[in-house]
Amino acid sequence: MKRTLYGFAMVALFSCVSFAQTVTSYNVTEKKVIDAQKAWCNALVQINEAKEKGGDYKKVASEIIDAAYYYQHGVVLFKPTLTTGDQTFRMDKEGALAYFVGGSEKYAGDKGFALKGWKRCESKPRGIILDGDTALSMGNVHMWDATGKETVVDKTWGYKLDDTGNLRIVLHHSSLPYKP
Amino acid sequence: MKRTLYGFAMVALFSCVSFAQTVTSYNVTEKKVIDAQKAWCNALVQINEAKEKGGDYKKVASEIIDAAYYYQHGVVLFKPTLTTGDQTFRMDKEGALAYFVGGSEKYAGDKGFALKGWKRCESKPRGIILDGDTALSMGNVHMWDATGKETVVDKTWGYKLDDTGNLRIVLHHSSLPYKP
Amino acid sequence: MKRTLYGFAMVALFSCVSFAQTVTSYNVTEKKVIDAQKAWCNALVQINEAKEKGGDYKKVASEIIDAAYYYQHGVVLFKPTLTTGDQTFRMDKEGALAYFVGGSEKYAGDKGFALKGWKRCESKPRGIILDGDTALSMGNVHMWDATGKETVVDKTWGYKLDDTGNLRIVLHHSSLPYKP
Amino acid sequence: MKRTLYGFAMVALFSCVSFAQTVTSYNVTEKKVIDAQKAWCNALVQINEAKEKGGDYKKVASEIIDAAYYYQHGVVLFKPTLTTGDQTFRMDKEGALAYFVGGSEKYAGDKGFALKGWKRCESKPRGIILDGDTALSMGNVHMWDATGKETVVDKTWGYKLDDTGNLRIVLHHSSLPYKP
Repeated sequence: MKRTLYGFAMVALFSCVSFAQTVTSYNVTEKKVIDAQKAWCNALVQINEAKEKGGDYKKVASEIIDAAYYYQHGVVLFKPTLTTGDQTFRMDKEGALAYFVGGSEKYAGDKGFALKGWKRCESKPRGIILDGDTALSMGNVHMWDATGKETVVDKTWGYKLDDTGNLRIVLHHSSLPYKP
Repeated sequence: MKRTLYGFAMVALFSCVSFAQTVTSYNVTEKKVIDAQKAWCNALVQINEAKEKGGDYKKVASEIIDAAYYYQHGVVLFKPTLTTGDQTFRMDKEGALAYFVGGSEKYAGDKGFALKGWKRCESKPRGIILDGDTALSMGNVHMWDATGKETVVDKTWGYKLDDTGNLRIVLHHSSLPYKP
Repeated sequence: MKRTLYGFAMVALFSCVSFAQTVTSYNVTEKKVIDAQKAWCNALVQINEAKEKGGDYKKVASEIIDAAYYYQHGVVLFKPTLTTGDQTFRMDKEGALAYFVGGSEKYAGDKGFALKGWKRCESKPRGIILDGDTALSMGNVHMWDATGKETVVDKTWGYKLDDTGNLRIVLHHSSLPYKP
Repeated sequence: MKRTLYGFAMVALFSCVSFAQTVTSYNVTEKKVIDAQKAWCNALVQINEAKEKGGDYKKVASEIIDAAYYYQHGVVLFKPTLTTGDQTFRMDKEGALAYFVGGSEKYAGDKGFALKGWKRCESKPRGIILDGDTALSMGNVHMWDATGKETVVDKTWGYKLDDTGNLRIVLHHSSLPYKP
């Protein structure tokens, strides 16, 4: 059984009959959302680390996208931080991979956002909405490079649980803070 | 705000910035399901008590149906324990009210299930499924009359949260245990 | 892509920019519910046919349960028509299989409901509720044997879509009509 | 009845019994999403028009926010286009109203986004996800002032149906396109 199951609780009732009661939940928990954001941050640092160590960072990025996003099941609504024009939205995995690690002919402008030297990343959601097998989160993500320089983005994520209980990103809107 | 709100938790982060994080849940909890079943049982006893005390038991029943079922918002799939033929299913409030307290020309066969002298009622769900703003429950309901005679039914309920956070019955299938 | 995707519709807008718009739906459709009920009926007849033809009807039944129910993903709330006592509810596949084809030591009273000579089966839902990736249905199922004798049951089904777009039974309450 | 009800369809079956079958859907439709985006655009133009005509544009804005957003029921995750610093996110109605029409002491930097002379507004979603009583949309919104100058924003909306069938905004992330 892959879903949350609170287990079999033996319940003694005053009629002196005891029975097993199961409770199954298909709902996203706050912990799953927080964990998904930590995993996203770790992934960003991992991809950069793979590149700096001469590893196969494209493979790392591809596996991370497969694990964290919903592309294998369907469309993802993805507006990365630094995309423009008719390549602003990345609805399929190819577009997401190009954004994170570059090297794509189709998305020639992409330099690889995950390769910008990130050493640390932290998500600070301001609000989370839990709604069945979906969740929404809005807040900031903070990223630091090797020199300690901090980049902050405004970040919205939408999530959906898959059948195996993995929380996957179905919506991702990232933008640089407005500069008046 | 009427929905579950886990409150504003001040979260101190290592970057020495603190901020308020809200978590809103639109999900049904196990407690809501258990409470709804206790309320249904209490209602059954209350309607009977109103009748025995010469009160306006039809009004009591009507208010309880309004409070516990989803009829005000839409169709309810209701198969009561003792209905038959083309009146088996009671999709609107009129059919539910007739079943519980009788006295309806349209449902002339209804004697009023809630008026059968119930003194105690207990729900024993065997399984509960929580799925967003809906929940399912299957198990037994035990009812006792003044003589201590027990009646057991096999009971399935489907629930849906309304906008004010009340859990309402959208599906109700009740049947006497099979006698081989 | 496994989910319903309405396809890429080229939309010409008055600002003379055209773009592709995708619409993805994770919702159960009425057709899926109707199809699932036809499939359940066909399965009942198939299992019986396998037995009558000397086939491996247990294997047929096992595969059908895997295909039609949610047991592989989690608990199913199942109250079959003819079960009694502490074996009334069949929350796991073993209990469902025993009910349909018998031959189980654990469920020694089961004679195999699917082996009762069914030649035709038809579901007549009175009401269907579509709610995201779940659906509820209540109504009657009619079954006929080789002599043309008809059996009618009151039937409630709850469904849930899996990641591959298959609609699976998570709740099943079946009961013989009340005999006054 | 306030929800989508496909009506009572008389279904003639081969067993010569006809019955009424109801289908109730609690799911958001694509049309509801498109209509909500048109309504949002119209509202923006209406607020500006009210101000230009000397009307009570704050009242107009307040009513529109009540009608279009989910603030009356709970938190809304709102990151407007032009907000900054610790006032970036507007989780309550006060923050949303200040953003649209200004004049708030608490949000002194707000000049009133809806008062910037908008004469026309059009939403062009690139992708829509329908998921039960919720929906997600990502794409662009184009706005034109009296001189014909166009402003484009990257726009994400999350919606939730209320009990009366109104689709309300629970999430709104707007950002100016990235300028390399």
